[in-house]
Amino acid sequence: MEPLHSTTQDLGANNIVRSSNKAAVVELLRQSKTGISRAELAETLCVSRSTISVIVHDLLARGLVLEHGEGTSRGGRRPIVLQINPDAGRVVGIDIGASHLRIVVADLDGVVVGEVHEPLRIEIGPEECLQRMFVLVEVALEVAGSRLEQVLAISVGVPGPVVAQLGIVSAPPIMPGWDAFPIRQRIEEHWHKPTALDNDADLGALGEWTFGVGRGETNLAFIKVGTGIGCGLLLNGQIYRGVLGTAGEIGHVTISESGPPCTCGNYGCLEAMAGGRAIAQRALLAVKAGQRTQLAQLAHAGEPTARDVALAAQNGDAVCQQLLADAGRHIGSALASLINLLNPGMVIVGGGVAEAGPCLMDPLRQAITEHTMRPSREAVQVVVSSLGQRAVPMGAVALALTWAFAQYV
Amino acid sequence: MEPLHSTTQDLGANNIVRSSNKAAVVELLRQSKTGISRAELAETLCVSRSTISVIVHDLLARGLVLEHGEGTSRGGRRPIVLQINPDAGRVVGIDIGASHLRIVVADLDGVVVGEVHEPLRIEIGPEECLQRMFVLVEVALEVAGSRLEQVLAISVGVPGPVVAQLGIVSAPPIMPGWDAFPIRQRIEEHWHKPTALDNDADLGALGEWTFGVGRGETNLAFIKVGTGIGCGLLLNGQIYRGVLGTAGEIGHVTISESGPPCTCGNYGCLEAMAGGRAIAQRALLAVKAGQRTQLAQLAHAGEPTARDVALAAQNGDAVCQQLLADAGRHIGSALASLINLLNPGMVIVGGGVAEAGPCLMDPLRQAITEHTMRPSREAVQVVVSSLGQRAVPMGAVALALTWAFAQYV
Repeated sequence: MEPLHSTTQDLGANNIVRSSNKAAVVELLRQSKTGISRAELAETLCVSRSTISVIVHDLLARGLVLEHGEGTSRGGRRPIVLQINPDAGRVVGIDIGASHLRIVVADLDGVVVGEVHEPLRIEIGPEECLQRMFVLVEVALEVAGSRLEQVLAISVGVPGPVVAQLGIVSAPPIMPGWDAFPIRQRIEEHWHKPTALDNDADLGALGEWTFGVGRGETNLAFIKVGTGIGCGLLLNGQIYRGVLGTAGEIGHVTISESGPPCTCGNYGCLEAMAGGRAIAQRALLAVKAGQRTQLAQLAHAGEPTARDVALAAQNGDAVCQQLLADAGRHIGSALASLINLLNPGMVIVGGGVAEAGPCLMDPLRQAITEHTMRPSREAVQVVVSSLGQRAVPMGAVALALTWAFAQYV
Repeated sequence: MEPLHSTTQDLGANNIVRSSNKAAVVELLRQSKTGISRAELAETLCVSRSTISVIVHDLLARGLVLEHGEGTSRGGRRPIVLQINPDAGRVVGIDIGASHLRIVVADLDGVVVGEVHEPLRIEIGPEECLQRMFVLVEVALEVAGSRLEQVLAISVGVPGPVVAQLGIVSAPPIMPGWDAFPIRQRIEEHWHKPTALDNDADLGALGEWTFGVGRGETNLAFIKVGTGIGCGLLLNGQIYRGVLGTAGEIGHVTISESGPPCTCGNYGCLEAMAGGRAIAQRALLAVKAGQRTQLAQLAHAGEPTARDVALAAQNGDAVCQQLLADAGRHIGSALASLINLLNPGMVIVGGGVAEAGPCLMDPLRQAITEHTMRPSREAVQVVVSSLGQRAVPMGAVALALTWAFAQYV
């Protein structure tokens, strides 16, 4: 082992200790619902009162922390408690879906202060999509009564395999024209704000874990069934991304080698058998084949969407119920493999198609029961997303908050 | 936040700091190939020389550390360097396979000092297997010239879903009679040594990562194709076990719903299509059907093993080559799902069947190429186990070493 140069090393070490103490203080303040006193911070972190005083003084001066209320007395004067100032900044969470764009503006407690969304077809390509996004974020800030200067960090989810380090998507099946486009760079150039790019299903997992039904789980999967099918994994309490950042591509697991061609170039992928686009295509075939279905009476007959199929199924349409049951069974089979492989505590089903309810979820659960081993089956809860369409943008908010607080450390 | 009771808390904190410093010293000594001086330890850990002196004094007194050689001079007297004393103890790694038992005795550097193995049919049940194991470990210690008193920790791998906290297997398909049997407790009662029980494929992953081809990878999967098929996952630099400890059951991923029944109760599982037992059964059918194969001439004709199939295939037997190609393709398909889902840097194929070579591996690699998405496919190396039959017992050694060193902290 090489001896290290002592002066630089020591300075470095002191800085690391100082900033890791500050990070711990900020983290404790974020976790606390009712505020913490300086004394409690010092005790919890096993550091001196003076160390805490220096850190808190800095955070107060920069406006991130507020002194208020009175804490729990321990005899003597009641101490002042400290809390995060939710209005010390804003973060923006953006969900670019295959067919929608949703923007959420949140305060530093993660409370939504503004939200807008509109339909957007991702296949128009990155230039047009980002232009539209730039405009819609300004609308969202206006709705939120916030200014761009208040924004500390931005996080964006996209429905493709993200190489997080590069801020790009790589060979995304349902994002034609986006392959290797410098998404993060383009956004940073526009706003000059720290920007994170992540896979939408990864953000869905983070959203449900931070704000939704997944709170407290250490191992969970979030499967997003929209136009495509993606999966976010939260393992040992953190988002699992794999070596490149492209983990979670459950949509391209082969379900049937003799299945239909998939946008990824293979055949019989889960997405090609059970994604929203596949469901819509099968519905169209049913209509054309003259099957007895309410879809034939749609105003835009001939081009039903997965949502039309879900509505008709809930309305008793047997053809649509069958389409969703088939999709649910395929998704359940793929999830069974995931459950056998990863033994998660929870699987959360989200995305537009998940809103179809029991028509989809009952066969999905049945397939999981049939294809999993007992111990892993008994250990897993299979639930519908509690945040619904907000799961991905709220995951983006959670990620952006991490980046925002890091700026104070 | 509740204020903490200060006295106990402070004592606790001091103990934690002291033992975490000691753990860090032991870890640095383990990682060092050429020894470390006290000064280097103090600098690297950013603690005082006197803190290091107290720790080292204790470790020297207990015999875990040796002073010797001379370190790198930094001007002035050349410092004495410290190293782990490999003979301060022994660990025992045990691999209970479906049809074999292998024992490795290693020193504290993980160097094998004794090894024995013999055939063993796991279906004779836990009582008989453990009795045989108790005897064979004594043989192994004798071979190693070691005494039981030197053994600091024992680790055992078994081919079933292990609930690590309880030291049992839960509903193991190929371990009849072992369900919920108190394996770890029985071993601890026999030897009164700290004992870890783990899944064999988990240990294979750990073995390859610590001593084999997987060194330096942060995300890898080890698939063990023996009688059954299991998979160990090392994610973000640590063994991933899931919420119960039963993660990695890739053998029970459904490959074909119309496939043969599996020992787990389902149909068409990977293990029932491509495990060693399935390969042997298919070979037997081929012989009975009068197909042109060398297996018909075996001394024990009528009951070929997967190993017989592998040997015949390497010997040009077309029927056996086809059997292995089918198995390889099925395993490759399941691994493709794993690669899409987890984006690992490496997949290591181990277990007896993996020794069949290109007959198995070429179709396996081909199936992976066909069923993975480009980014994840390009990021993964698919390799054969470098430790071979030692992968699992060496993983057991690695785990036992962790337990052994923990006793000094």
